[in-house]
Amino acid sequence: MSIGAATNGAAGLPVPSHNTQAAATATTSPYQHIADFISNVGKFKIIESTLREGEQFANAFFDTETKIKIATALSEFGVDYIELTSPCASPASRADCEAICKLGLKAKILTHTRCTLEDAKTACDCGVDGVDVVIGTSSFLREHSHGKDMAAITKQALEVVNYIKSRGVEVRFSSEDSFRSKAVDNAGVHRVGIADTVGCASPRQVYDLVRTLRGVVKCDIECHFHDDTSCAVANAYSALEAGATHIDTSVLGIGERNGIAPLGAFLARMIVAAPEYVKRKYDLHRLKDIENIVAEAVHINVPFNNPVTGFCAFTHKAGIHSKAILNSPSTYEIINPEDFGMSRYVHFAHRLTGWNSIKSRVEQLGLHMTDAQVKLLTTKIKAMADVRPLAIDDADSIIRAFHLDLQERDTTKIWEN
Amino acid sequence: MSIGAATNGAAGLPVPSHNTQAAATATTSPYQHIADFISNVGKFKIIESTLREGEQFANAFFDTETKIKIATALSEFGVDYIELTSPCASPASRADCEAICKLGLKAKILTHTRCTLEDAKTACDCGVDGVDVVIGTSSFLREHSHGKDMAAITKQALEVVNYIKSRGVEVRFSSEDSFRSKAVDNAGVHRVGIADTVGCASPRQVYDLVRTLRGVVKCDIECHFHDDTSCAVANAYSALEAGATHIDTSVLGIGERNGIAPLGAFLARMIVAAPEYVKRKYDLHRLKDIENIVAEAVHINVPFNNPVTGFCAFTHKAGIHSKAILNSPSTYEIINPEDFGMSRYVHFAHRLTGWNSIKSRVEQLGLHMTDAQVKLLTTKIKAMADVRPLAIDDADSIIRAFHLDLQERDTTKIWEN
Repeated sequence: MSIGAATNGAAGLPVPSHNTQAAATATTSPYQHIADFISNVGKFKIIESTLREGEQFANAFFDTETKIKIATALSEFGVDYIELTSPCASPASRADCEAICKLGLKAKILTHTRCTLEDAKTACDCGVDGVDVVIGTSSFLREHSHGKDMAAITKQALEVVNYIKSRGVEVRFSSEDSFRSKAVDNAGVHRVGIADTVGCASPRQVYDLVRTLRGVVKCDIECHFHDDTSCAVANAYSALEAGATHIDTSVLGIGERNGIAPLGAFLARMIVAAPEYVKRKYDLHRLKDIENIVAEAVHINVPFNNPVTGFCAFTHKAGIHSKAILNSPSTYEIINPEDFGMSRYVHFAHRLTGWNSIKSRVEQLGLHMTDAQVKLLTTKIKAMADVRPLAIDDADSIIRAFHLDLQERDTTKIWEN
Repeated sequence: MSIGAATNGAAGLPVPSHNTQAAATATTSPYQHIADFISNVGKFKIIESTLREGEQFANAFFDTETKIKIATALSEFGVDYIELTSPCASPASRADCEAICKLGLKAKILTHTRCTLEDAKTACDCGVDGVDVVIGTSSFLREHSHGKDMAAITKQALEVVNYIKSRGVEVRFSSEDSFRSKAVDNAGVHRVGIADTVGCASPRQVYDLVRTLRGVVKCDIECHFHDDTSCAVANAYSALEAGATHIDTSVLGIGERNGIAPLGAFLARMIVAAPEYVKRKYDLHRLKDIENIVAEAVHINVPFNNPVTGFCAFTHKAGIHSKAILNSPSTYEIINPEDFGMSRYVHFAHRLTGWNSIKSRVEQLGLHMTDAQVKLLTTKIKAMADVRPLAIDDADSIIRAFHLDLQERDTTKIWEN
């Protein structure tokens, strides 16, 4: 019945799952799960688009060396695909695309092009493993951007799809804002892509839409979610629940405007739902390094509240939280920081602290006190912290001074509990 | 059928709505909406918890002056409730709570206390409009934190609820990790609260849970979502769709670990679904100032990718995007930046640029060129930008030099289209 810590870790969560144990688990819950046979939550693939969508980020200018560094790091991390800017965008874009294809990375290399034969030929000539062709089909875009009607769009799409297939290259067809994808599915594309290009979709809409599409096409389904209204990760998750197979991410979410589903945040979501799959497939300890490479390349700071790697992602402060965390971390943590090579931190030097936090710090410092002594010490620390911010050093000094005082008085038993 | 720009602005989105027009709209869509009579998407209330949850943020130390500044700004912004740290946390917390209650703000003042008569009495004595009592009821917390069994929890809850009601003060009862709320609903609480304290809930879970609760209790339903797996805003939205009435936010999302649903991101989500309600009720132009006040107070930067106020939230870069945006902003923007006092920016000085972006810049600079001239200029700018990052000044210099060159050659008609 509860959301959160009432169940013992990720395995017991009432997340819709293709796992056959889900039905048994659900009987202990006051609401019934819909058995979710279409879910790909436990077998998704990542199309990492830092070098395509990410290049559309306001600050992004990736030189060849940086692109190779990022592509190599992403491949070692374990992403399934790396998507690159169209080789038709500029001469350097083409040269970089060719260079990355020649690296022989484990990840498949995709490029993203407009839906024209000329672009498709250029892409195939670069040696990519797959081409993501994109064309906008919404009435808005028909009117305001490329001005083509639907029949012409379909004809052009089929020509391009057939050409790429004839080159023995994987092909995805994506209409930017809708999914009239049946024709290209019949033509044998490997994937169709759907995109929330303006970032306005909500999770229940996405679930309904993808579930419908799942019944229409046989091929894989790739989803691309912008984050303008902070739903990109939730939408990606809902899409996988509804049968999508591939999710587009970028490191720290960089892309047009405020970007798309971030690689790290997406994996934070997924590790809760499919811990073994995520831990087996991705080298999660590399996440922080990859984020730092990209943050440096585009001159941004990792957001203070970034999931997993943000400076406070595993910092516990309130007394009641800290007490429970010290007894059993999963009470207030759904992600184990160690899975990502991170560590937990219980913040104890502030006015909301509790004596359990102080006791833990006393023990970390290798000191010994009775509970009554720790409670008295806690009162002193709270009183200090109520007046001004306390650094850890300040709090440690108070603890050590109190302990020294205890030892001196110990001979006279004044402080004995 | 489409997600995103296929419909004409926010009003036409296939968002589940309590609006009776929803059914009519749905008939034009290939998938059917469930008419959503329980949705509160268009009539939600905000419980702003920067001064309670936010005080549990690692960096937070709010002195009295800062608390008053934040509370005043939030009230002027239009939030319905402001929640404060328990007056029992420390002497300064109590003094600050009393001081804020005496300000006579338009927003109602709440405080958040443990579920004990002593705390409830202290809270009422401070002059608050409402008390949010909280007790953890999950089996994990029963074992690892306060060690009480369910019968004792219920008895204690009812005593505290009845006491607060007897003081004429609004009362919300919240169990941290579940919602065994029927007993307190019967006892006449104003709201029950449910919380995803560890940040692991997914939107479809939330929807099912809240919809169930909506059928169980008569009172209002408040929801509190942590953002560990980047679903806080999406979960808040799903909760409102399912009949929740109140959402907890904090400015920039500050709180325990990486925090809760951020005020700005939540309103970005809501303005898409209920534009008139949001614009009428909240003074959105104040958002950026409030974020800056809080960011400064807790020594953080506004994340680069913050919805609405992040530096690139309305920056358009790729050629195809910029072209459409220049023709019709809603093609690639679901939020009107002007609603928040922000402005749009089309980034034109990079290798992915298109001639429409350059043409727009040429016009912004008050220069005149033919389309053919702009296309030639665009080639030159793309070539420069392919080699190194271009600042706007650099690009403007190229544009002006090109224009000057044109004027000089104009006499000999060499450049004429």
